[in-house]
Amino acid sequence: MASKFLPDLTSKLSLNDSVSIRSFCSYLGKENFVFRQLFDSVSSTYTYLLGDAGTKECILIDPVLEQVQRDFQLVQDLNLKLKYAVNTHMHADHITGTGKLKNLSGCKSVISKCSGAQADVFVTDGDEIEFGNYKLNVLSTPGHTNGCCSFYLKDLGIAFTGDALLIRGCGRTDFQEGDPETLYQSVHCKIFRLPAETLLYPAHDYKGCTVTTVDEEMRLNPRLTKSQDEFVDLMKNLNLSYPKQIDKALPANKVCGLYNLPEESK
Amino acid sequence: MASKFLPDLTSKLSLNDSVSIRSFCSYLGKENFVFRQLFDSVSSTYTYLLGDAGTKECILIDPVLEQVQRDFQLVQDLNLKLKYAVNTHMHADHITGTGKLKNLSGCKSVISKCSGAQADVFVTDGDEIEFGNYKLNVLSTPGHTNGCCSFYLKDLGIAFTGDALLIRGCGRTDFQEGDPETLYQSVHCKIFRLPAETLLYPAHDYKGCTVTTVDEEMRLNPRLTKSQDEFVDLMKNLNLSYPKQIDKALPANKVCGLYNLPEESK
Repeated sequence: MASKFLPDLTSKLSLNDSVSIRSFCSYLGKENFVFRQLFDSVSSTYTYLLGDAGTKECILIDPVLEQVQRDFQLVQDLNLKLKYAVNTHMHADHITGTGKLKNLSGCKSVISKCSGAQADVFVTDGDEIEFGNYKLNVLSTPGHTNGCCSFYLKDLGIAFTGDALLIRGCGRTDFQEGDPETLYQSVHCKIFRLPAETLLYPAHDYKGCTVTTVDEEMRLNPRLTKSQDEFVDLMKNLNLSYPKQIDKALPANKVCGLYNLPEESK
Repeated sequence: MASKFLPDLTSKLSLNDSVSIRSFCSYLGKENFVFRQLFDSVSSTYTYLLGDAGTKECILIDPVLEQVQRDFQLVQDLNLKLKYAVNTHMHADHITGTGKLKNLSGCKSVISKCSGAQADVFVTDGDEIEFGNYKLNVLSTPGHTNGCCSFYLKDLGIAFTGDALLIRGCGRTDFQEGDPETLYQSVHCKIFRLPAETLLYPAHDYKGCTVTTVDEEMRLNPRLTKSQDEFVDLMKNLNLSYPKQIDKALPANKVCGLYNLPEESK
């Protein structure tokens, strides 16, 4: 069964847990950086685990209530310590896992000052969210909601765009404080000014795609390659149905998922 | 709307398409390497796009018939040229997109010699699948089927394990040529001998996880941390239901999806 390029088994026996966890992060070109993309198939939401395997600090971006056990188990499996549960905005399509994660782990919740939601830490444009030796730069990218933020990890060349920019799409602007002019400006003046090669990780995808780049969306996004007037006209005439979860999700998310949890999720 | 860490817009205007596509790959520590994970929610199958943005050659691993348009569009969006459509094994849960991709792109199909399926190129343990300046090492990892292969991209420290090893699980051994002893040996003597930090990308996940590592599965896989005897006993008593798609998928996959396509997919 041996293959010529397989290392001798003995070479692995000296690896301790700390070394092996640290080293698997080097694929992103940065020692110690831990990155996992996780998916909730009911709401098509992506949750992101970002960590520093050296200091063990990690954060979760956009955790979903029903997936908290999975996500927290992964944090523990990787021997990490959850510092923050961060939301890109006050979601209307699922209940955040933030409150339950606070209870389980003692982490702090983070959201934009303009979101209208409660949290332990409020952020605004230009702020930094630190975990271990890494930091996310907060970009205010309103338009889907007033409090929408994107998070840019400059050292790694990756950004998390929430519902502002999706892969070949964008968030809705027909509920909460949705405003297409504002969204257009956010994408063009903030996200599209990041380096072209920046990897963009959205809060949702509905077609099984996982990541895009600034370059791709500037060339290929069917909505945001239009002029602002065309974009506004398009967004005002989508005639989408009322979001299924909004009446349950918004009251819970206003308090970071801490109150009014469905009985089965407590 | 400006943020202090955003680059001046003018700095991006000199980037041409080739530069921007090339540079976004550097996040994996290798210039020019393109990597995309794609998901089919009906069969919970992951398809992988791997490419060399320098030479433009790319391959797809485990494409799904119903997602061929999406996957081939992405190949075109990234200005790549599809060289191979590769299957880790003859799937029983979905029809491969290989045949349709051959028709669309002129690519060649690749599968193990032991799979029992037709293909343009047959591979066996120790072979290399080249695309641009990258190559996959073929590891024979039978047990789910006789022809199951894993593919190891040593330069990047990543491997594609098909249905041999899943995240905290493994493929079934109760149909086709399934054999739990053989699967146990494949995982322990091949996949678990890769470096501990190797990122493992499976053919399926049913819980929204996207990737694992050798280290994690050696510590945490609930089946493969058992002794071989315990594993065999467990696998022989799973009492799983008959695979829904098998009677449609196997005849089509025996000919790499070229014949007997459902009428709506032609």
